[in-house]
Amino acid sequence: MEISTIIAYVLVVFTMFFGMTFSSANGFNIGALMNFFDAQSIFITIGGTFFVLIASFPFKSFTHIPRHLKMIFFKNKQDPLEYVEILTELSKEARRKGLLALEAKAAEIQDEFLKESVLRIVDAIEPDKLRSWFDQKIDYISERNDLERKIYDMGAALGPAFGMIGTLIGLVNMLKNMSLEGGAGTLGADMSVALITTFYGSVLANCVFMPISCKLEIAQGRDLLIKELIIEGVVAIKEGENPKYIRDKLMNFLTEDEIRKANGEAPSKGGKSKGKKGKAVES
Amino acid sequence: MEISTIIAYVLVVFTMFFGMTFSSANGFNIGALMNFFDAQSIFITIGGTFFVLIASFPFKSFTHIPRHLKMIFFKNKQDPLEYVEILTELSKEARRKGLLALEAKAAEIQDEFLKESVLRIVDAIEPDKLRSWFDQKIDYISERNDLERKIYDMGAALGPAFGMIGTLIGLVNMLKNMSLEGGAGTLGADMSVALITTFYGSVLANCVFMPISCKLEIAQGRDLLIKELIIEGVVAIKEGENPKYIRDKLMNFLTEDEIRKANGEAPSKGGKSKGKKGKAVES
Amino acid sequence: MEISTIIAYVLVVFTMFFGMTFSSANGFNIGALMNFFDAQSIFITIGGTFFVLIASFPFKSFTHIPRHLKMIFFKNKQDPLEYVEILTELSKEARRKGLLALEAKAAEIQDEFLKESVLRIVDAIEPDKLRSWFDQKIDYISERNDLERKIYDMGAALGPAFGMIGTLIGLVNMLKNMSLEGGAGTLGADMSVALITTFYGSVLANCVFMPISCKLEIAQGRDLLIKELIIEGVVAIKEGENPKYIRDKLMNFLTEDEIRKANGEAPSKGGKSKGKKGKAVES
Amino acid sequence: MEISTIIAYVLVVFTMFFGMTFSSANGFNIGALMNFFDAQSIFITIGGTFFVLIASFPFKSFTHIPRHLKMIFFKNKQDPLEYVEILTELSKEARRKGLLALEAKAAEIQDEFLKESVLRIVDAIEPDKLRSWFDQKIDYISERNDLERKIYDMGAALGPAFGMIGTLIGLVNMLKNMSLEGGAGTLGADMSVALITTFYGSVLANCVFMPISCKLEIAQGRDLLIKELIIEGVVAIKEGENPKYIRDKLMNFLTEDEIRKANGEAPSKGGKSKGKKGKAVES
Amino acid sequence: MEISTIIAYVLVVFTMFFGMTFSSANGFNIGALMNFFDAQSIFITIGGTFFVLIASFPFKSFTHIPRHLKMIFFKNKQDPLEYVEILTELSKEARRKGLLALEAKAAEIQDEFLKESVLRIVDAIEPDKLRSWFDQKIDYISERNDLERKIYDMGAALGPAFGMIGTLIGLVNMLKNMSLEGGAGTLGADMSVALITTFYGSVLANCVFMPISCKLEIAQGRDLLIKELIIEGVVAIKEGENPKYIRDKLMNFLTEDEIRKANGEAPSKGGKSKGKKGKAVES
Repeated sequence: MEISTIIAYVLVVFTMFFGMTFSSANGFNIGALMNFFDAQSIFITIGGTFFVLIASFPFKSFTHIPRHLKMIFFKNKQDPLEYVEILTELSKEARRKGLLALEAKAAEIQDEFLKESVLRIVDAIEPDKLRSWFDQKIDYISERNDLERKIYDMGAALGPAFGMIGTLIGLVNMLKNMSLEGGAGTLGADMSVALITTFYGSVLANCVFMPISCKLEIAQGRDLLIKELIIEGVVAIKEGENPKYIRDKLMNFLTEDEIRKANGEAPSKGGKSKGKKGKAVES
Repeated sequence: MEISTIIAYVLVVFTMFFGMTFSSANGFNIGALMNFFDAQSIFITIGGTFFVLIASFPFKSFTHIPRHLKMIFFKNKQDPLEYVEILTELSKEARRKGLLALEAKAAEIQDEFLKESVLRIVDAIEPDKLRSWFDQKIDYISERNDLERKIYDMGAALGPAFGMIGTLIGLVNMLKNMSLEGGAGTLGADMSVALITTFYGSVLANCVFMPISCKLEIAQGRDLLIKELIIEGVVAIKEGENPKYIRDKLMNFLTEDEIRKANGEAPSKGGKSKGKKGKAVES
Repeated sequence: MEISTIIAYVLVVFTMFFGMTFSSANGFNIGALMNFFDAQSIFITIGGTFFVLIASFPFKSFTHIPRHLKMIFFKNKQDPLEYVEILTELSKEARRKGLLALEAKAAEIQDEFLKESVLRIVDAIEPDKLRSWFDQKIDYISERNDLERKIYDMGAALGPAFGMIGTLIGLVNMLKNMSLEGGAGTLGADMSVALITTFYGSVLANCVFMPISCKLEIAQGRDLLIKELIIEGVVAIKEGENPKYIRDKLMNFLTEDEIRKANGEAPSKGGKSKGKKGKAVES
Repeated sequence: MEISTIIAYVLVVFTMFFGMTFSSANGFNIGALMNFFDAQSIFITIGGTFFVLIASFPFKSFTHIPRHLKMIFFKNKQDPLEYVEILTELSKEARRKGLLALEAKAAEIQDEFLKESVLRIVDAIEPDKLRSWFDQKIDYISERNDLERKIYDMGAALGPAFGMIGTLIGLVNMLKNMSLEGGAGTLGADMSVALITTFYGSVLANCVFMPISCKLEIAQGRDLLIKELIIEGVVAIKEGENPKYIRDKLMNFLTEDEIRKANGEAPSKGGKSKGKKGKAVES
Repeated sequence: MEISTIIAYVLVVFTMFFGMTFSSANGFNIGALMNFFDAQSIFITIGGTFFVLIASFPFKSFTHIPRHLKMIFFKNKQDPLEYVEILTELSKEARRKGLLALEAKAAEIQDEFLKESVLRIVDAIEPDKLRSWFDQKIDYISERNDLERKIYDMGAALGPAFGMIGTLIGLVNMLKNMSLEGGAGTLGADMSVALITTFYGSVLANCVFMPISCKLEIAQGRDLLIKELIIEGVVAIKEGENPKYIRDKLMNFLTEDEIRKANGEAPSKGGKSKGKKGKAVES
């Protein structure tokens, strides 16, 4: 559970409630919350947005939403460094006992993608074909990721659009029925209701769809990075690369912070200078 | 018929009718529907949008619309897995009896694109040229797809533009003729009529053009994916690849869900682990 | 003359006139047209847009406009199929009598680009250099096309901008001079005039610049497609490719409709199945 | 001096003055110009835009502005055809007397970039490395061009933003102090002042920053085209290409108009048909 | 400390204060500042923007902000020319004493990235792999840079969005409670408060997020340029290139101004003509 996301959402909700009920001139007025509740407006804005979304995507696209929400609210526990270490270990194993020895090793691996990828090494297939096979896989995953995120991007566009459509409906009805008898009081109240849909639409886009799309993109990116790291490592093992070179190459996928942490936490594996560490790993 | 799209459109229409006729303060008022009907406004917004669309594209572009609507409202029945199985089968046939045996097999194939592609294998042509031939074909199909979708994207831009032009026409006329005698009552009604075109334009863009463009893009993408899968398979057969490698390569085009389903539904063809299945297929 | 474009423009003008003069409440009022004519507003919006356009581009850029308008209002008569047939014919000629025989053939060709390209085959130049020569040519034509279209895209942005600038000028003057004596009647008329520039700007962008840019892009695309088809064919002839392969490769540039039409109209040249046709052509 | 740009700017200024002072109803009123002058508004809009621009770019970026203005207001005198002729001449010289003979020739060249590039031919360096050296140079020039243009694009975004900020400041102050005693007269004048900043912002963006960015892009493009032409020629000379091939290749960089003009103006050098001209040049 | 950025920010703040307090009609009125202070509005706009930002990014993303601010407010002291000289020096050293001699030299280098890169030369690794290793590193740094900048771009979009949400909240409450008794005075004050959030949102986007994003992009670009220069040099040394060629190649990364300065300041190293300098450096 990524605690900062939860807290942020609580604060966003609190900000909204505070904004609706407090004014510098009149202080708190909880009753003002009712100004922002209008069943018909909720139906037009949220209903319109979701129904058009459903019409815009094949139904199957919506079955991914629970997985997306999980990716957003739960921290990705996968540590790239751990994968670097596993792959370096596997490359040493492959050097010592041959590629076939990796089949037994693969059985111990829990990560589905890593296990499957390691099993590919054992297959009688040239490294070039293996790389093209993996490249294509990554391309299609990346394409599907973009497609899955499109629901939220379209939602972020439809929210304000239906907010405006709702406001236009309200204004047209109000103006048509406007009569001098009603007075400015009714006019204000009607106008207020008409504006609520625009408010709903903006909140829907900026507090729901946009943050989901943004965070999902980052989570998908991190997931893809680890997959690319695994593929880079697996192909290098298949090509019979030097374990030191493999480790150095995979370290590229880490941020400078992660590299520093990696070097700091594992001093027994090679000290602080890259040169020394390389030798230690190779020995 | 994709049922979710139909239901969604029914719900969108219902949402609009509900929004127009219901207000929290006054309850239902079916008569309010008439506030949103104005022949002149319909003509300016919808007419303007379509006439400029016709001026913006060669006439032939519009002949594709029925095909597009069919792609949107009917579910694509093509199952990528089926194509993987057919191509794996063909590759085994080619291994056993030679490439020429595929000519007879091709006669049984119903899919036009697959049949034509398989017949290309039999031609005396090198695999490299075959791939370049297919790559070019895919490029042009993809380019034409983008071009065909452009009508809807331009419609989504023109709708609100003509909505605004209509509203400006209404406002200019109203303001020019505004006189104190008319009173606020007439002002309201005139203003209401002026706003209707903006409403039409928004609905046209958000409920018609944008969902069509979005869903068409997905349908075209799926269609192209299956064509790419076929080409990948056909070229691999021509190159004399191992049926197991071909099957694995083509499985890349499937989503993880489809792969799981494929493995679950066909246990007799190779069990659950990839390694075992591979051998079973090859045998 | 592309008749649909002409009719569409007539209908757009009619829609505008109808919108300006008709209202559901008061019926037709031709005099209302005068509400939309204001010399000063026309000058600010159209003048401002064009003068800034002239300041934004080298003067030479505007000399292409007549050619662009011709591309938009006249149907491109070039039939890709015809070029496929000519190039297939030339490839057979080259096979029979050698590349030099094409020099005589080229003299009969009317299309400037095709003639020049065929003459290149005769030059003593390797196929690879020929392709790189042509690729560069296509790249520069495509770049110039994008540049030429930029005038209309910028016009579509400047139109509404100067519409707004005109409206702001009108509002500032009106508000500054606003006095209670004038009454709401004058206010309305002044406001009406101020809004006309926004109307002009929107019409300029949506009925003039955007359709031109859109249709010009399609026309340029079709023109480039035929040039690419010619180049593909010419390079293939230079490489001494099989006429059947050349024809098949060039057919890729056609749409499925055109391919069907091609096969239907020329049954004597090879029947309906690709396989048979190929042989017939080659013989 | 590009006369059309100067005239266009004079006309833009005239259009603005005309729009501000003339109205169809009241004729000319030079005094209305004062409605559009407000020291505070100028300071907020123009000051705000420029100060944020200075905060957004390293100071050194602004030192390029004079050079940019020169590129916009003065016609680029460089004629690509001239460079084609010089490079063809150099390639013939190199064929006759060897590459080292170019060192003497280079001394006569005035264009800095051409001279330096020709001197590179003499260096003992392989053609491949020379091309990679030049490609990198062009890449970095193109990247820097994009970066330099970013100031004007950001200015075009900041202008209207500070216009709106100024208007909001004006409105907040006006509304806060609004009292019934002031009457509608003051309200109008205050509102008018508030709107002036939006007017300034739009003019700043559409009459200053956007045309500069647009024309600068074209000027940079032309400059880069000539540099690419020079590089293509220089590398071809280094590779020992045929002068005829070099000339034909470089002619690709010219537009069809320029090619026609080139062929028309220099009939003694090879007549009108490409074939003849080629031979004449080579001889 | 980049002094121009500091001064610009001071001037932006001054412009804002001046705009809020001065009006041409009434002169200075410091009290007007209070019109723009409203605790609730600050909370909605700034709070809403930041809380949604926190919900949109993993918490770790925010730990980079101090580093970003340092990059923006402090001038990058790294001089590309200096790196060119160091790398040329190292290439001469490598030519004279062999690649292993660089290990000792590396110890004296202060720049972390340069030191680490030079140490890679000493490793027993082919130049091709070294380049692919470095290319991947640059790709990931560039990707991370884009990701880090996304916070500010999203902030620039959220600021105005929450400004509008705040204004809508204010309008809905105001209109709901609007009564004839309050009179236009209260209406103005309420409306004024409602508009303040839009003002805050615009300032947040245009004076905070956009300049940070813009300047950060330039700073990251410069940082990456120097890294690419180092890599280009290190790989060239590994490939055993001529020091003169290395120097010339690296000079490509410099602007023309920097090249001129470099040649002007170091006349003893090779005079003004490239030809002469090259020889001097090589000797």
